[in-house]
Amino acid sequence: MYFKISKRNFYNALSTASRAISNFSPLPAFSGIKIDAKEDRIILTGSDSDVSIQTTLKHGEDCVLEIKEMGSIVIEAKYILEIVRKTDADIIEFEMIDGSLTKISGNSAEFRINGMKAIEYPAIDFSKPKESFQLAEDVLKKIITQTSFATSDKETRPVLMGVNFHCEGNELHCVATDSYRLARKTVELEEELNFNVTIPSKSLQEVLKTLEGENEVEIAVNDKKAQFIIGDTIVQTRLIDGAYPETNRLIPLQFDYELTIDTKDLLNAIDRASFIKNDGVSVIKFSLSEAECVLSSKSIEVGSSTEVLSSASFEGQPLEISCNGRYVFEAIRALGGSLVKFSLCGEMKPFVITSLEDDKILQLVLPVRTYA
Amino acid sequence: MYFKISKRNFYNALSTASRAISNFSPLPAFSGIKIDAKEDRIILTGSDSDVSIQTTLKHGEDCVLEIKEMGSIVIEAKYILEIVRKTDADIIEFEMIDGSLTKISGNSAEFRINGMKAIEYPAIDFSKPKESFQLAEDVLKKIITQTSFATSDKETRPVLMGVNFHCEGNELHCVATDSYRLARKTVELEEELNFNVTIPSKSLQEVLKTLEGENEVEIAVNDKKAQFIIGDTIVQTRLIDGAYPETNRLIPLQFDYELTIDTKDLLNAIDRASFIKNDGVSVIKFSLSEAECVLSSKSIEVGSSTEVLSSASFEGQPLEISCNGRYVFEAIRALGGSLVKFSLCGEMKPFVITSLEDDKILQLVLPVRTYA
Repeated sequence: MYFKISKRNFYNALSTASRAISNFSPLPAFSGIKIDAKEDRIILTGSDSDVSIQTTLKHGEDCVLEIKEMGSIVIEAKYILEIVRKTDADIIEFEMIDGSLTKISGNSAEFRINGMKAIEYPAIDFSKPKESFQLAEDVLKKIITQTSFATSDKETRPVLMGVNFHCEGNELHCVATDSYRLARKTVELEEELNFNVTIPSKSLQEVLKTLEGENEVEIAVNDKKAQFIIGDTIVQTRLIDGAYPETNRLIPLQFDYELTIDTKDLLNAIDRASFIKNDGVSVIKFSLSEAECVLSSKSIEVGSSTEVLSSASFEGQPLEISCNGRYVFEAIRALGGSLVKFSLCGEMKPFVITSLEDDKILQLVLPVRTYA
Repeated sequence: MYFKISKRNFYNALSTASRAISNFSPLPAFSGIKIDAKEDRIILTGSDSDVSIQTTLKHGEDCVLEIKEMGSIVIEAKYILEIVRKTDADIIEFEMIDGSLTKISGNSAEFRINGMKAIEYPAIDFSKPKESFQLAEDVLKKIITQTSFATSDKETRPVLMGVNFHCEGNELHCVATDSYRLARKTVELEEELNFNVTIPSKSLQEVLKTLEGENEVEIAVNDKKAQFIIGDTIVQTRLIDGAYPETNRLIPLQFDYELTIDTKDLLNAIDRASFIKNDGVSVIKFSLSEAECVLSSKSIEVGSSTEVLSSASFEGQPLEISCNGRYVFEAIRALGGSLVKFSLCGEMKPFVITSLEDDKILQLVLPVRTYA
């Protein structure tokens, strides 16, 4: 095994593959990156068994790659990343010299690193699942950023730790909920498909980091795994087992109150009150009337805050409603846009937050009871 | 107690005073900032009892300050900093309304925060010690950055956790050592003084953060404390008790070998080898001769590196010397300048590193024995 490669391309590909690697992997081989030198390409693989990333390097206009001898080896990710990042050479030479001892050199510096034999690395099946569709990168990015924050971080109901992708016909519904709040994004696909899979939020974060520009992403799913094919990189993840709860019936359709407000003003107001916590939670209270909308917050230990929401406009009978400030903050930040609309049914009923500029994304938050 | 003040100035002053506050203070009052409204000024005090910072705000060209009622209060630092940082108002109103309940308002937001009575805050004596001198801010900054990294972080010999400031006549020697390496900076003072104090490295870091520009700093010391007067701010620190070791006799004066090398090249070469560690320590070996200078590093677990130092020039008999890579890295980074000189006496003798551009700063490193 012997090849020469552009430092910059090699480093970027190593970084990409290493993202799948966990510091807590039980299998020693999984702390390494598998490097395969084929006839005309280098394939890099990183995995923690839940998520696996494979990326391919070829000779091309902006990448020098000269393969003199084929072969495979596994090198500790942190070492190879350090070496390649810190070299001052434009071209790196990579040569297996004795069993698993590997020489990596650039300019006047030369490293001899103890690798692991490729045979010790678990076989990972990167075959493409049958059900597949295309999405623009920016659409996939929005799906992830607008929903995944609402997943649960508690292992008691594992299925809530992922985003549910449910497709019937050409409508894809992406739903996340931790049972106190919910985010739902709807996307129209070109093809008609039928699947229902729940992808771990953690894996989607790795997909997000791998998205690179404005190209198309191919997404392929079966009942075992999901694959995101982004340029020369495949991000593959296991799915979360178990039936995802039916969430549509949770979302109210009729409302008695409506609040419209400038997104940025409300984000800033919630942020200002966020240090006033009870048992670590910032509870905010909206006191709404057609004459005035006030945001307040109170804690016996810290003190209180009140703020008039001058950009708010409210329709309906006077209403007081309290909720977790962070949930509302994250929901309206995810919506984006300059104006958000709260549609409410009553003091203790879930309420819906939407953007006036995008009707494909909906956020739902459950109120909390306060005694004050 | 009631005043109005410019947000920006108030926030900067609160940040400065809060730097002295530790998260681990045993005394509840020390988690707060003491705010004194005097007739024509606001005085803010923060302390963790080792370091205390006091800063004064007055009405002036770039700061609105209107004091309507004098008084004193202590407010939890993290709350007041949050409120003032996140307000969208240019002017903040601050009013004690009931005992220790304090109203802080700006624009449409109003906070009522539970403070502590000023009488619960320990009295801190900010009187100025007698022995005092002036230094330009950039000189003090260099003293701290070029020496304090070499202090010890082990509590077994507390006196080594500080930088020793020793003045006889008009020569100030600032020395730090952890007994494996040493840094010594010499500064000429305008006045003749006589003192010998050891200032905790941690306190000097707070002084460093408070330095703001190109003015003069007044430094005042006695046998209990040191005070740094920087503009409207006083940083005061306790000293470390105990006699500082006599270090001059450790520094060799005669040398048999001399290595000159480009600072940046050597920093990069050491950095490249730094991941090759034995028991968490990166040991580097210089193999020096007039024909070639080589830096190498080896670990049974990881592997090895070798690098020819092409910018090095060496005078003397061939020499091999090993040392802690981090110590050399930190020493030459602290020296600055484009060229550094190593003056050596032999394989197991301490060696001196100096900058060719500044003879007032000296670094000393002890070699280590290697068996390879």
